[in-house]
Parts: sequence; structure tokens; C-alpha cells
Amino acid sequence: MTRILYELCGADETALFSPHCWKARMALLHKGLDFETKAIGFATVAQIEGGGRRVPVLRDADHVVEDSFAIAKYLDEAYPNAPTLVPDAALMEFIINWSQVSLHVAVAKIAVLDIWKMLAPTDQEHFRTTREKMFGMTLEEFNAKNAKDGKLLSEALTPLVLTLKKQPYLGGESPNFADYVPFGALQWLRTTSSHDVLPKEGPVAEWFNRLLDMYDGNGRAVAAAA
Amino acid sequence: MTRILYELCGADETALFSPHCWKARMALLHKGLDFETKAIGFATVAQIEGGGRRVPVLRDADHVVEDSFAIAKYLDEAYPNAPTLVPDAALMEFIINWSQVSLHVAVAKIAVLDIWKMLAPTDQEHFRTTREKMFGMTLEEFNAKNAKDGKLLSEALTPLVLTLKKQPYLGGESPNFADYVPFGALQWLRTTSSHDVLPKEGPVAEWFNRLLDMYDGNGRAVAAAA
Repeated sequence: MTRILYELCGADETALFSPHCWKARMALLHKGLDFETKAIGFATVAQIEGGGRRVPVLRDADHVVEDSFAIAKYLDEAYPNAPTLVPDAALMEFIINWSQVSLHVAVAKIAVLDIWKMLAPTDQEHFRTTREKMFGMTLEEFNAKNAKDGKLLSEALTPLVLTLKKQPYLGGESPNFADYVPFGALQWLRTTSSHDVLPKEGPVAEWFNRLLDMYDGNGRAVAAAA
Repeated sequence: MTRILYELCGADETALFSPHCWKARMALLHKGLDFETKAIGFATVAQIEGGGRRVPVLRDADHVVEDSFAIAKYLDEAYPNAPTLVPDAALMEFIINWSQVSLHVAVAKIAVLDIWKMLAPTDQEHFRTTREKMFGMTLEEFNAKNAKDGKLLSEALTPLVLTLKKQPYLGGESPNFADYVPFGALQWLRTTSSHDVLPKEGPVAEWFNRLLDMYDGNGRAVAAAA
């Protein structure tokens, strides 16, 4: 196999939690392409494919592509006969930015202590130091303050809820990369957080469950956090 | 002229401020189509084209279309040789919902008292009663509490800022309906609010100014609130 997806993992190599890596994984599944996964901890990301890279990284024979959006666009170019991932790159850029500044911020607030717990010991110290500096408090204090507050998440999901009331996927009748972007954020939450804040019913819950079941349940095969 | 756009106005008929009407107006300009405008106060909306309608309403010869997104899609169908407004209807639905729940909420908080002041006396009472019931306080109290707070607006604009750092328009190299949607919200703010909270520099300010100048400065021709 010459197609390899480098993905971030926790201390347990099957614990694939990175939202950006999930976007890339769903993109490969969408295209119906076989691939081998290499699960990488934070500390060894620097050694991937010559170094200086950030996950996800895709090696596809002679091509090395980094960043989930770049991977999706590369796959559309390289495999034009498989279903399209990015029908409109300009609007996709907006979807990615919206997810980053709304969903990712909400998930990070809920899950940051749980993410720290999942990391390999070699990754934990760096993760804790950088986040505590950013927050101006310990991870435990930050968690006590923010983790149970699902309000930010539910506000962030509102435009997605309204859209999924009108159509089954952000991509329309079937999913595309626009769906995998917020899916990645919610899968990040599902695989890391012990706080039970994912929507349980309604359009987003139904959409998320359909995407977890898609591609032989690839998304559901990774365990939810306990 | 058999092409008529019914648009909402204040006591002054040239005060076109409705965000939804601006989306439709920009859509017609984008297509290069001539049209006559009929400015309508809230109280007479019920009389447009047989009644039971909400502005904007477009009459195009025998066709009557209501709702700015429906108008944009109709124009793409009816005038396929003019530049496309909606290249991806599924993602456009999301853009519209995002604008509605983030930008519109932020603008309404800032501008509601100013909007009331602009209305014809016949429209003012209904507007005040419905809003005060919704807010649980007088318009003046609501204004004192919210109007100078530009934080909600600047947070709501963040995904737009990030996207416009990478490309000149949401539509990509040139604008399309995805641009006219948030443009409508900011034009609503510009034409109604006495509070000076629109971005003055950076990607959004530059993008907004380019859109105001486009189509012979049609957007700029309507006076900004004093």
C-alpha cells in the first residue's frame, strides 16, 4: 500500500481524535480509496515525511499533501471520477473558517482536560504548559469553569441545525467535504469528552449518526469517550 | 417596465434599509437587469401583488417571486447567460442561515431603536409593541443596554474576516449571492444605525466598500445613517 494517512492519536493508538485528521479520513472514504493509517502522537509529528509538517499528512504514491482541505482538493484533482468532495472551493473556505472559530472553540472548552488525559505521557507536559499559558489557569480550573457549559456549543451549531432542517446534508442530498468539516469537530468531542453534551435528538443528532454509520461505520468504530 | 422589485422603506421612501431587500437588489444588479423599485412601508406590505407576501417581492413579467434566495435562484434559471448567483444552492443555504443567526442578531441589537425612528408613524406602533414584548423592556432600555456593544458583531464577523484574508469575495475572485447575503446585513446596519460600529479597516471593511461601489455605487447611493 502506497497510500498512507498520518493521523494524530492518544496514548492508545486506536484513539483517533483529531478533527482535522477526521476530515481527511472521511475525504478518503468518500472517494472510496483504500489507505493505511499511521497513528502518530504529538511528539513524533515532527518526524513525518521529512519533518516540518502538521497532521493530517497524506502520502499517495509520489505525492505528499498536508492539511485536510488541501488533501480534499488534491483527491478531487487526482481522482476526478470518484464523487466530488469540493464542488465550490470558495464557499468551502468559509465553512472551514466558520467551523474553526465556532465549533472548535466550543469543543475545546468542553474537552481540553479530557484530551490531556488521553495523551501519551511524552505529549502531556507540552500540551498542559501551552494551554495553561493560553488560559491563564490550570487545565483543571479551566475544565471546572467551562466543561459542562453546552450553551456555547449549541449556539455554535445553530446555523447547521437550520440548514439540516431543509436538506439532509450540508452538501445537499448527499454529503461532501462541507459535512466532514463539522463532523470532524463533533467526532473530536465524541472521542474525547466525558461530558455528555452532544445533541441527542433533532437534525444535527440524526445527521451525525448517519455520518458515523457511513462507510461501514468507520466513524463509529473509534470508541466514544467514557 | 415589467420588472418590479418591492422593497421595504422607512418614512423617507429613499431610505431602503431591509437586509433581505438588499440581497435581492444586489442579485438583480449582478445579473445586469433593469428594474423599477417600489418602496413599501411595513403597513402596506400586505397589499403587494395580491397580498399575503413578505418583501422582497419581484415581479418579472408574468412571474412573481418572494424571498431573496428564491429570487436569486429564479434569476439564475430565467437568465442563465448572465453571471451565476448561486453556484451551490446547498452551501448557500448554510451561508444564509449563518448570516441570519449571527450577523442579523448582532445588527438588530445595535440598530433596533434607530430602525424604529426611521419608520413611518403608521409603522412605528406595531414595530415598538412587537419588539418590546420580545425583549421584555422598552426599545430605549434595550438600546441603552446593547447598542454600543460592537463585540457581538465583531465576533459574528470572524469567519468572514478569515475567509476574506484568503480571497477577495466569499464567491472567490468575484462576488456572488454568498457575498450579497452578509452585505445585506452590513448595509442594514450602515443605513439605520447612528452607532459607529462598522469595521473601518481590514478585509471586511475593504470588501464592504468594494461592494458599495459596485454597480455604479448603487449601494452607496442610499444614505448612511447620521
